[in-house]
Amino acid sequence: MKKLLVELGNRSYPIYIGSNLLNQSQLYRQHIKAKQVIVVTNETIAPLYLETILKNLPGLDVETVILPDGEQFKTLEYVAHIFDKLMASKFSRNATLIALGGGVIGDMGGFAAACYQRGIAFLQIPTTLLAQVDSSVGGKTGVNHPLGKNMIGAFYQPQCVIADADVLDTLDDRQLSAGLAEVIKYGLIRDAEFFEWLENNINALLARDKQALAFAIERSCLNKAEIVSEDETETGVRATLNLGHTFGHAIETGTGYGNYLHGEAVAIGTCLAADLSRRKGWLNDADVERIIELFKRCNLPTFPPEQIDSDRFLELMAVDKKNVDGQIRLILLTKIGAATLPIDVDKTLLIQTLKTYGRT
Amino acid sequence: MKKLLVELGNRSYPIYIGSNLLNQSQLYRQHIKAKQVIVVTNETIAPLYLETILKNLPGLDVETVILPDGEQFKTLEYVAHIFDKLMASKFSRNATLIALGGGVIGDMGGFAAACYQRGIAFLQIPTTLLAQVDSSVGGKTGVNHPLGKNMIGAFYQPQCVIADADVLDTLDDRQLSAGLAEVIKYGLIRDAEFFEWLENNINALLARDKQALAFAIERSCLNKAEIVSEDETETGVRATLNLGHTFGHAIETGTGYGNYLHGEAVAIGTCLAADLSRRKGWLNDADVERIIELFKRCNLPTFPPEQIDSDRFLELMAVDKKNVDGQIRLILLTKIGAATLPIDVDKTLLIQTLKTYGRT
Repeated sequence: MKKLLVELGNRSYPIYIGSNLLNQSQLYRQHIKAKQVIVVTNETIAPLYLETILKNLPGLDVETVILPDGEQFKTLEYVAHIFDKLMASKFSRNATLIALGGGVIGDMGGFAAACYQRGIAFLQIPTTLLAQVDSSVGGKTGVNHPLGKNMIGAFYQPQCVIADADVLDTLDDRQLSAGLAEVIKYGLIRDAEFFEWLENNINALLARDKQALAFAIERSCLNKAEIVSEDETETGVRATLNLGHTFGHAIETGTGYGNYLHGEAVAIGTCLAADLSRRKGWLNDADVERIIELFKRCNLPTFPPEQIDSDRFLELMAVDKKNVDGQIRLILLTKIGAATLPIDVDKTLLIQTLKTYGRT
Repeated sequence: MKKLLVELGNRSYPIYIGSNLLNQSQLYRQHIKAKQVIVVTNETIAPLYLETILKNLPGLDVETVILPDGEQFKTLEYVAHIFDKLMASKFSRNATLIALGGGVIGDMGGFAAACYQRGIAFLQIPTTLLAQVDSSVGGKTGVNHPLGKNMIGAFYQPQCVIADADVLDTLDDRQLSAGLAEVIKYGLIRDAEFFEWLENNINALLARDKQALAFAIERSCLNKAEIVSEDETETGVRATLNLGHTFGHAIETGTGYGNYLHGEAVAIGTCLAADLSRRKGWLNDADVERIIELFKRCNLPTFPPEQIDSDRFLELMAVDKKNVDGQIRLILLTKIGAATLPIDVDKTLLIQTLKTYGRT
């Protein structure tokens, strides 16, 4: 087992990465301070792993909430179901919430923990590659608004993250690929060496080679932990983690939450950001080709959906969290392995990308 | 104008107390960093003060949300109306929310500000005595759950609090009295001298003597600011501000939000806490009489509603935020001017109080 630390002063916490971690009850027990525990999961994960978790929590007062599975349920209404359960169980402020699932469960569970009695402890047990390498680390929690992705939420750090690579055995191929989109992101924004490693090892990852997956998870978490430690609430460098996300969120919102997986939308968004970076003169054609090619090898989509034309993109992107007074700002790449902070983008270039990239 | 500081490191902020402050646009302008401003208020306050606020925000992009008036609307559903307006207006993370109203508006507006895009700036302009002396200061924001008061929320500090005593001219007598309940609380928990001053000046306060009101507001805010600076997230002394509140919240929840004003429920709750403190041997009969008498002079209720019997009280109190693993904990008085931290209470004594105080 590897242990990485997200260093945030008195909010620091470990990420445990390894195999068979779900059965190591002392791992989570050491982060549970009182008897009341609520496990939040979904209908897909519950039959697979809930029993394992429950049998490792003996002697505690454990309640469970099983939500439907999918981005379309990441709403205030479904978070309210968690509050209802906590209240009906008369849970106190010293209770602990365990988020057992992918990014949607982690975001909702974390947000519920942030708000219940103004904050209870929570543990992240991510069960998708995407959640293990990205969304479970760093304390971004929240839900979607019908008009914009992740628009309601809180920065709220967990007590620990338990990333058990074994749970990826039950992940379907589409989810695995979606997770790889965020893995590739780390290479693109700050780790060219890792990007090259991914180019050389993508087949092993897709074949679920345990060693390759463990390395990719660890390297991703290391990158994420460094960034989050430096900039917890995204006043600077943390925004680079949003490469491709402004386009991606527009795709998720514009096509209806749940039609594209988050990682799929991010893959397309990253291609759009790469195209725009080329128009800025920062990437050359070969760079953009390398990026698109790697996503394609992951069986990820690389072209925006036809139903979202450039006007609709601009409308959807107008509510991005990086915007200032309504001005669209984007993360672009200055080379493979280096990203800009959010920058105002020349609208002519942006429209060129939106109108021409993948539109032929 | 007086200016008090709530000292919280990089989250420190001023409380401005005085007359005619709503017209001093530079007061709020200096705390508004970008063009987008949303004013959240209610149907009672909007016709009285909204125009004044708006005319002092020239050159800004101002939206307004007018909510219905009353504790029964302090829910996630109504906070969602604020999110809807922010999203429909495409407001960015650098937008500012102004909460113009009493405690309900301040709590809901503050919570919306805490959650929108994981946090935007907000200003508190409290329009009731209760909000000016208590709820607008200290960063407790949130909404009620059907099973418990203030159960969903965040600690989130405003940029400033503007307490304009002139707005109390339009406050009805019942609301004024409710505010005095929280004023009296400061005397009881930590400021015996102020309690005596209140005994001597309660008639002036009820007659809305400006000088007396200004003093009471300032002294209350000073007490609150000191406590909050010492313990922002209520791990210790801040809990003493909850004197009478566990009983009071039970009354508000048990009778249906909006039937008792918060201050009214707190007055009754404080009498119950005083009775229990007497049973513990800390207060004598004369102390308890002094406390009840002062609430009575404010025309505040001092007896619990008949509809909530002792069993129902215990059930409602089982979800209080101070509880640990379901054990009820209360703030009691060791004398007039000094309170305990939350303590486990001998259930026999508690039931005696619930069964006998005001039940004859």
